[in-house]
Amino acid sequence: MDFQVKNADGRLGILMPGLGAVATTLIAGVESIKKGFSQPVGSLTQMGRIRLGKRTDDRFPLIKEFVPLADLENIVFGGWDVYADNVFEAAVNAKVLEPMLLHAIKPELEALKPMKAVFDKAYARNLDGTHVKEGADKMALAEMLMDDIREFKEANNCERLVMVWCGSTEIYTEESEVHQSIEAFEAGLRGNDPAIAPSMIYAYAAIKMGVPFANGAPNLTVDIPALVELAKEHGIAVSGKDFKTGQTLMKTILAPGLHARALGVKGWFSSNILGNRDGYVLDAPENFKTKEVSKLSVLDEIFRPESNPELYGDMYHKVRINYYPPHGDNKESWDNIDIFGWLGYQMQIKINFLCRDSILAAPLVLDLALFTDLAQRAGMSGIQEWLSFYYKSPQTAEGLAPEHDIFKQLMKLQNTLRHMMGEDLITHLGLDYYQDLVDTL
Amino acid sequence: MDFQVKNADGRLGILMPGLGAVATTLIAGVESIKKGFSQPVGSLTQMGRIRLGKRTDDRFPLIKEFVPLADLENIVFGGWDVYADNVFEAAVNAKVLEPMLLHAIKPELEALKPMKAVFDKAYARNLDGTHVKEGADKMALAEMLMDDIREFKEANNCERLVMVWCGSTEIYTEESEVHQSIEAFEAGLRGNDPAIAPSMIYAYAAIKMGVPFANGAPNLTVDIPALVELAKEHGIAVSGKDFKTGQTLMKTILAPGLHARALGVKGWFSSNILGNRDGYVLDAPENFKTKEVSKLSVLDEIFRPESNPELYGDMYHKVRINYYPPHGDNKESWDNIDIFGWLGYQMQIKINFLCRDSILAAPLVLDLALFTDLAQRAGMSGIQEWLSFYYKSPQTAEGLAPEHDIFKQLMKLQNTLRHMMGEDLITHLGLDYYQDLVDTL
Amino acid sequence: MDFQVKNADGRLGILMPGLGAVATTLIAGVESIKKGFSQPVGSLTQMGRIRLGKRTDDRFPLIKEFVPLADLENIVFGGWDVYADNVFEAAVNAKVLEPMLLHAIKPELEALKPMKAVFDKAYARNLDGTHVKEGADKMALAEMLMDDIREFKEANNCERLVMVWCGSTEIYTEESEVHQSIEAFEAGLRGNDPAIAPSMIYAYAAIKMGVPFANGAPNLTVDIPALVELAKEHGIAVSGKDFKTGQTLMKTILAPGLHARALGVKGWFSSNILGNRDGYVLDAPENFKTKEVSKLSVLDEIFRPESNPELYGDMYHKVRINYYPPHGDNKESWDNIDIFGWLGYQMQIKINFLCRDSILAAPLVLDLALFTDLAQRAGMSGIQEWLSFYYKSPQTAEGLAPEHDIFKQLMKLQNTLRHMMGEDLITHLGLDYYQDLVDTL
Amino acid sequence: MDFQVKNADGRLGILMPGLGAVATTLIAGVESIKKGFSQPVGSLTQMGRIRLGKRTDDRFPLIKEFVPLADLENIVFGGWDVYADNVFEAAVNAKVLEPMLLHAIKPELEALKPMKAVFDKAYARNLDGTHVKEGADKMALAEMLMDDIREFKEANNCERLVMVWCGSTEIYTEESEVHQSIEAFEAGLRGNDPAIAPSMIYAYAAIKMGVPFANGAPNLTVDIPALVELAKEHGIAVSGKDFKTGQTLMKTILAPGLHARALGVKGWFSSNILGNRDGYVLDAPENFKTKEVSKLSVLDEIFRPESNPELYGDMYHKVRINYYPPHGDNKESWDNIDIFGWLGYQMQIKINFLCRDSILAAPLVLDLALFTDLAQRAGMSGIQEWLSFYYKSPQTAEGLAPEHDIFKQLMKLQNTLRHMMGEDLITHLGLDYYQDLVDTL
Repeated sequence: MDFQVKNADGRLGILMPGLGAVATTLIAGVESIKKGFSQPVGSLTQMGRIRLGKRTDDRFPLIKEFVPLADLENIVFGGWDVYADNVFEAAVNAKVLEPMLLHAIKPELEALKPMKAVFDKAYARNLDGTHVKEGADKMALAEMLMDDIREFKEANNCERLVMVWCGSTEIYTEESEVHQSIEAFEAGLRGNDPAIAPSMIYAYAAIKMGVPFANGAPNLTVDIPALVELAKEHGIAVSGKDFKTGQTLMKTILAPGLHARALGVKGWFSSNILGNRDGYVLDAPENFKTKEVSKLSVLDEIFRPESNPELYGDMYHKVRINYYPPHGDNKESWDNIDIFGWLGYQMQIKINFLCRDSILAAPLVLDLALFTDLAQRAGMSGIQEWLSFYYKSPQTAEGLAPEHDIFKQLMKLQNTLRHMMGEDLITHLGLDYYQDLVDTL
Repeated sequence: MDFQVKNADGRLGILMPGLGAVATTLIAGVESIKKGFSQPVGSLTQMGRIRLGKRTDDRFPLIKEFVPLADLENIVFGGWDVYADNVFEAAVNAKVLEPMLLHAIKPELEALKPMKAVFDKAYARNLDGTHVKEGADKMALAEMLMDDIREFKEANNCERLVMVWCGSTEIYTEESEVHQSIEAFEAGLRGNDPAIAPSMIYAYAAIKMGVPFANGAPNLTVDIPALVELAKEHGIAVSGKDFKTGQTLMKTILAPGLHARALGVKGWFSSNILGNRDGYVLDAPENFKTKEVSKLSVLDEIFRPESNPELYGDMYHKVRINYYPPHGDNKESWDNIDIFGWLGYQMQIKINFLCRDSILAAPLVLDLALFTDLAQRAGMSGIQEWLSFYYKSPQTAEGLAPEHDIFKQLMKLQNTLRHMMGEDLITHLGLDYYQDLVDTL
Repeated sequence: MDFQVKNADGRLGILMPGLGAVATTLIAGVESIKKGFSQPVGSLTQMGRIRLGKRTDDRFPLIKEFVPLADLENIVFGGWDVYADNVFEAAVNAKVLEPMLLHAIKPELEALKPMKAVFDKAYARNLDGTHVKEGADKMALAEMLMDDIREFKEANNCERLVMVWCGSTEIYTEESEVHQSIEAFEAGLRGNDPAIAPSMIYAYAAIKMGVPFANGAPNLTVDIPALVELAKEHGIAVSGKDFKTGQTLMKTILAPGLHARALGVKGWFSSNILGNRDGYVLDAPENFKTKEVSKLSVLDEIFRPESNPELYGDMYHKVRINYYPPHGDNKESWDNIDIFGWLGYQMQIKINFLCRDSILAAPLVLDLALFTDLAQRAGMSGIQEWLSFYYKSPQTAEGLAPEHDIFKQLMKLQNTLRHMMGEDLITHLGLDYYQDLVDTL
Repeated sequence: MDFQVKNADGRLGILMPGLGAVATTLIAGVESIKKGFSQPVGSLTQMGRIRLGKRTDDRFPLIKEFVPLADLENIVFGGWDVYADNVFEAAVNAKVLEPMLLHAIKPELEALKPMKAVFDKAYARNLDGTHVKEGADKMALAEMLMDDIREFKEANNCERLVMVWCGSTEIYTEESEVHQSIEAFEAGLRGNDPAIAPSMIYAYAAIKMGVPFANGAPNLTVDIPALVELAKEHGIAVSGKDFKTGQTLMKTILAPGLHARALGVKGWFSSNILGNRDGYVLDAPENFKTKEVSKLSVLDEIFRPESNPELYGDMYHKVRINYYPPHGDNKESWDNIDIFGWLGYQMQIKINFLCRDSILAAPLVLDLALFTDLAQRAGMSGIQEWLSFYYKSPQTAEGLAPEHDIFKQLMKLQNTLRHMMGEDLITHLGLDYYQDLVDTL
């Protein structure tokens, strides 16, 4: 591949199905940053640097100065929600950001009102949508979404759009016949096939409208052959699934470290308590299952028990999420990890992460939007595996196991950026430092 | 560099100054493993695998089957200690391994008796050595060590030797005049310069005898211009400093993860409790200082506050080690990390690691011995930065900042091995998987 | 009440339905203690002291030297189990005690074989009993138990017996008609009423045979009007329910402390991981419910939210038990407590208890057996509320709320012992110390 | 003793040496409570209830409705400080309370200005007082304080005064000759004896002016024979030392629980991190020593190792306080407790308390002020041991060991209140509930 990256001229519209805690924290945050009140901490595109060249070159530009990204000043937001609250009201209800901050940007937030959502209670039993579209069949709903997209683009004078799913976790489902080809899928839309989830309708509409799509929940959504095929056909970048925040973030940081040192793992117990809308939705077992599958998958790929049976063959991995209202959005995780070392002697690691769900997720939405837009401008279509870094359960080419190790994911992301811009890839070999030095002695 | 790695024929002698908890845990462990009682968990050379080629090639050989390493059957151990206890007695006193296990290999351990140590109470105030060499001056002591080495090699019929410092942490010192050149150093040995620490005398004797040297403590030892120069002159591989175990291991796993996500850090407080001899030595402030400097250095290099002042410019980092006899060798660390994310909102991470000091360190001694021997056979002399993976405070070429990020260190180690054996380096770019798939559609 | 406590002459038989981890840890422990290998730590009757008189009197006798208790040398054990393993085999399977210890007392343990159990799979879905009694109806089973008791007493030449339920938690049930009177209950036994649980049949048999009964599980068992009435009629001491160990023990220690200081509680989240048979049984939701009800009740009584609505009115209390095989009997609890203080400012307490389930429970069985026997000899019949100290969910007189505060329970226990022996009760007023001193100045 | 408690008529002045974080949090809090913004959580006198009579009587009045206490509306505050900041400025600097809250009561706080302090840098090396009295000798300083007291009383139209030491911890000192009698002490004041600490000068001045005194720091202060004698002579109530908050509060809650169950303790390691002025003062080793002695004493009295050598004879207890600026007033403690149970099997408890130093301390100042005033009105002079409940290191009559068990302290406090008001003392015996029920059957 050889890249010709187009410039990020004009306005970029970021469309989000689900204007809940995460999306409103993002929108309010960007407004606050634009006014100079706050910093975009946690966002690689805004604050991250990248090393270029040799260590001794001392080249560490900001990523946003290295690759052409849309500027925050050129971003507009839009979205859909099952509740009619405007973004100010939704942000107040979410209780993530301080009231004082929200009041300082109230006019901007109040102006943002959600479009009516495509909603199906069968996919989110603990939610009661009131601000929803009605259509003859799922194809009709898809077309209404396409109209929304078209109108939004025009009304906001956008050059480009990108869609990031910020809605709730849908109930657990597996691929079925209707997901296998574009034809079957479109027939299913017309026939109201119950296996077509709301999130798939959004993804379908986006791709048809030429809008790249990133999936922040563990739902299948765009991770089905029909939509991958459609994305390739239309030359659209897609990626997923499930924002990697909190406990799973910690897990994909720590597990590679244990594996690096060939330390064995006998058990890993992960408990979570949170009290926001996400926690409430996940209190329904069918929705928790989707999340559980996403959360459980990470360790196997990192530890490869089939290659390391003495170290990881008997690992017992359990994940629990407990709805606990007193914490609100302040998600807290507690992990107990039973490891063993030299001669099998046992040790334990306990990690207690007092995190904030939406604070961790909001900058991921921004990064995914900006990098997805970059990929689209670079002509990269189909699955964007280099964005694995952001996902609990990365979508990959069929037959290719995802990488969960966050450091390999980071290397992949950084080397992709270097490759895009014609810089040398970094391998950390570094023998030359010693060769050079020897030569000059 | 182009490598011609010699085979690992004949016996390898591993010499350790300091036959305390770590060394005896290693020796007893290797005996136990050779008898099939236990597994060498935590040792990359024994149980680690390495990926070769493309992900889809599915090539993951054991490292020991990929590069030519000395076999456990061909290893013999020797060492020096300030106490005359044989290895069985020392292991029993150390209370790391179960008495039942030690009794099963008692004859092998009893046969191993320490040689008299070079000791200087000024460098370890809480120790009282009784089994020590007496010499006219430090050069005389160095020569006595060289005699020991020569005799050990002959008596044990060794083809090659390697020395790994497993002794206590010496008091804090900085480089002075006497450390700047071979000439000054040798004059200092003859003149009994107080700035020459016992560990330096060992390193000097080793290099002079053609024995590569690895430094498991935070002392300067081989990290002075005089000894680096001597190593290059004799074509000897050296590396250091301070085995990376426990809390610092966790720190260099976690910090790169936070940095990867551009999360800010406001404070990091690290407390340790341990009750073994190491803990007792570190209860003396001058010895703790050496360890503290080693432990404090890791975060700055990973976070690069000078490049990221908004994220890491005000980070407050404090490390405490507390002698706590009830825990014995069961070192326990507790870390509190104050981080901040999107818009500056604060979060906390608490890590409680119930580890075992010597269980984590023993396999590092084995790996360092085997990899150092490999480097020596590959003709790599001077500082072995690719072994940074094992050290809290990696020794590097002058003017080159050490890498502390354990994942970059691992990449460096693995790509060095790949490079040695003529395999492709891995960059995790991986765009080809998608290109190929597109082509075949 | 005025007491005449009979001496503890002759042998005391301790009968336990359920010879699993707890009971075998008790039996093996008592054998080990009798041989001088170990100490009965955790047992108030063996190691506890009691203050008598004024502080300045300095009278702190051992409890066992203050009240007449059966001596360990005069105790014999017996029991029933759904598996035929002898106590040695069961103790080995339970993996609580070290093999070396068990082998040192193997003959004594092997000699103890369980009698066939009364078992009903409907009450413990995760268990498959194979060593069980068959009878025409529940009354027939009760009579078989009475025969067992009679034979055991004779065969072991016991003067007195006491029964302590050490079996699994039964599924959740509430009181129904059949539990309301002796007549209804006996009719139910004959008619095989499904509401009569196995544990009730044991309790019925015990009381009819003049054997006092203590209930270590949260099942209703003896906490029904029919059996309380029967106990009073026969002059038999009974108590329950659910041994207070681990997390609930911590909770009834900590909660009174918070309440003492008028600190508010917003939420209390309790998670447990354990991997023993008890954990496996509790993995069935119906059995967990019984335990949950028992575990949840403690906070309300201590905090009295109805009297302190500003402090405890909105407290959210959640308890989870997770089956986690890697831990075996090493139960671990993690609690997060959200408290608030002055002006409503919030604080958090996290407690991580790495405990051992059976190690904590075994001495409670011993204490309950010895104190119940004491009560019986003192002529105290019916519900023994002074033993609340040992229970998660103390059985009390109808209409009387149980005390859960462990310090009030301890005061009740100690003042009951003082009262029995004619000593002054202690109120901690202590103004006299100052009066005396003033007078003598 | 027979009590005649005078009514709490008129205004009560609360005088505090040290208008730092604790005192300003108290003052601001009381203003906020009076305006109805907040609740006095953590204050027994304001929100606590007391049980009277039998359990079945259901009498649980608020303490403030049971005993005659000064009303918040009738309280005025005053104090001394080494900095001239008014209370609003000091509260803003302390960063304990939200700016929004402070601004809502700014006028009331600004009006309160500290009087010049008696200060001696030798007693607080990390502080630099600028707002201090100058006098010929310590007696002159004492007289200046007496003038301050007299003027404050008049200016504020107070009926009664009480003084509570809220200043920093002074350096460690032990009793010497000058502290042994009133005569020696007064000679020392005139002779500028260096062993007379500033806090003693305040206590002396208070007692001479008829103002009862409570000591919130671990300094000797009023805990010397000279001042106890003076207090008795003048009929003045005094008490101390060191507000029991945070870690020690948790310790005196938990330790009695472990002791109640006869569980052994092998080690207790306590670490603290805090970043307020108190933490900064304690960073000086001489000041930390005073605090350490106070913090270490609690366990010995609770566990009584001399009576229970098998359980507590080898307990290793260590306390560390670490200055950690990122936390500010948010003190955090981490405790590791190594316990053992049945047969000596080991278990661990870890407690992580994320507390707020001043939030916990402020209500103690209020309670001590109100209860001390009550004692004074009840005619109780000399040491008030019944207020032990509030202190880390309770001051007691000579020869009488302090009670540290918070539950015995609470019982002492509550029974003292009951006794004052002529109510029955509570013993928790409660056998009558069962007797009555038996009788009525």
